[in-house]
Amino acid sequence: MGTTQLESVPEPKYWHLKTVIGEALDTDFAVGEILPNERDLAARFGVARATLRQALEQLELEGRLQRRRGVGTTVAPPRVGVDVSTTQHAWPGAGEDTWHSVDSAAPAAVTRLLDITPDERVHVVRRLRVTEGQPVAAELLYVPADSVPGLAASGAPGGPARARDVLSELQLLALDGQDRSVELGSARADDAKELDRLPGAPVLVVTTRYLSEGRTAAVSVATYRADTCRLTFGDSGDLVMAS
Amino acid sequence: MGTTQLESVPEPKYWHLKTVIGEALDTDFAVGEILPNERDLAARFGVARATLRQALEQLELEGRLQRRRGVGTTVAPPRVGVDVSTTQHAWPGAGEDTWHSVDSAAPAAVTRLLDITPDERVHVVRRLRVTEGQPVAAELLYVPADSVPGLAASGAPGGPARARDVLSELQLLALDGQDRSVELGSARADDAKELDRLPGAPVLVVTTRYLSEGRTAAVSVATYRADTCRLTFGDSGDLVMAS
Repeated sequence: MGTTQLESVPEPKYWHLKTVIGEALDTDFAVGEILPNERDLAARFGVARATLRQALEQLELEGRLQRRRGVGTTVAPPRVGVDVSTTQHAWPGAGEDTWHSVDSAAPAAVTRLLDITPDERVHVVRRLRVTEGQPVAAELLYVPADSVPGLAASGAPGGPARARDVLSELQLLALDGQDRSVELGSARADDAKELDRLPGAPVLVVTTRYLSEGRTAAVSVATYRADTCRLTFGDSGDLVMAS
Repeated sequence: MGTTQLESVPEPKYWHLKTVIGEALDTDFAVGEILPNERDLAARFGVARATLRQALEQLELEGRLQRRRGVGTTVAPPRVGVDVSTTQHAWPGAGEDTWHSVDSAAPAAVTRLLDITPDERVHVVRRLRVTEGQPVAAELLYVPADSVPGLAASGAPGGPARARDVLSELQLLALDGQDRSVELGSARADDAKELDRLPGAPVLVVTTRYLSEGRTAAVSVATYRADTCRLTFGDSGDLVMAS
């Protein structure tokens, strides 16, 4: 990894160090390889450990390094591209059996998007999205009772059966369009556990509004791992960026 | 803001505290208002300052709080929705005069996306994207010399004139499609300065490939402020999520 001394650099020292280590990761290290410990690395680059730690934190934020308790710091594989394009005109859950009904209330931000009052009944179903064998997102779909008026009669008890009923009823509506937003968030404790992250870890929150007959018929809030995922969306199905 | 004591909560203490403060921000505080100092807040909620700081960090990550040196911690305005949908079939820079030519090389990740060798010439133009009066993104557009063969003859000296020439030449190509990805990154020192952030702050990196005649004719890498921006993309122009 060289012994570059980091003197008289106009950028912050840790930033330059980050670039130097980043280049070394490309050339000298393999994916999954464990980095030397912080003391050795700091000595090798002639920097204080605080500087080294800042550089490693940046590289973790950029998805180049993974820090796991009990393992140490390893070289991360390239981020997995996850398609979140809105070109497929389909309700969520069609043909899938990975959704579960959960007993939870819609947060205030969701009731605002649904344009309903906080006391209106909302069905909540949840799934773990898996891509290339990795859990990449925890997704919650909020469906106001008004959107699925045929549901009450079915009376499935809960869990996957109830989720299937909610999603089947949703399919009966005409889907006029959807829009999506992506923003930075922090992982809630329950999502973090499913995604094998610590609570509060940075995540990408994808919020989708499903529109039917001039109103928002359902809202999905999906929490993607920001360390391992790159969200992709193209303007046609076959143009999605390759990994 | 109440004096809720945080005892016997199954979630991490700071997480529950975050929720409590988040609710108080909705009801008791106005946008731009300065929060009491950490010592007073910690005392009010009966938590250690380390716990309080963790909660404030989460709220900052979620865009609810802004911490600025010399000002303190203020209540953040709602994030600005910035449209990044790929439904407009247009090259970047059409009709705009905010681009500058810069003398910089394409990073390795960009030359890979362009499928060129590192020594091939690439024109680089840059702009600061402004939405609702706020600088929201620093965008770099990489155009291989091969994509704009007519450019060499024009010989504009640099700066905005050169950028205009590069973008005009690009308009001559047929744009067959584009795809985009969003991932978490950390702000480079130069971008951070333009965006009024500290180097290394979390940012949303939007990478776009512009496709023409079966190849990637240009690549744009835009660094969006993650604290103030929510990226929106719909499947039709008029469905973009309202702020």
